[in-house]
Amino acid sequence: MKARILITLKTGVLDPQGKAIQKALGSLNFDGIDGVRQGKVIEIDLAETNEVAARKQVSDMCDKLLANTVIENYDIELIPSAA
Amino acid sequence: MKARILITLKTGVLDPQGKAIQKALGSLNFDGIDGVRQGKVIEIDLAETNEVAARKQVSDMCDKLLANTVIENYDIELIPSAA
Repeated sequence: MKARILITLKTGVLDPQGKAIQKALGSLNFDGIDGVRQGKVIEIDLAETNEVAARKQVSDMCDKLLANTVIENYDIELIPSAA
Repeated sequence: MKARILITLKTGVLDPQGKAIQKALGSLNFDGIDGVRQGKVIEIDLAETNEVAARKQVSDMCDKLLANTVIENYDIELIPSAA
């Protein structure tokens, strides 16, 4: 099973990388951009095949290592392996 | 309209950040991890409301600035604003 974890900064946390991208897009003449936020995506190939167990395992990984839960949110998507 | 862009390294491109995460998870006693890849997620708030035009605009942004298409793939999801 594959897990895709989206880690994004919480609303209200300053995102200088996002601001830099927004400015760069503006200077390339892209208009109508109201905001840009940058985050991380982590894709993990898991041996676990049970969906509930896999979600629990990935959630533990996020809490212990992958995300800083003080300033970041994470969102887990599980993608079953092609049979 | 909101656009979410997932930028990931192409298959075969070395991903040292992913390897570092995999090793760190291993040392925290998470088992059954066959591979880890890290990428970026960029969320853009667009003034554009037409889906076709928005996708074209975001695709141009990726080609010109956001992704290095030699080594990275990008994937665009459009999320209509809540009415």
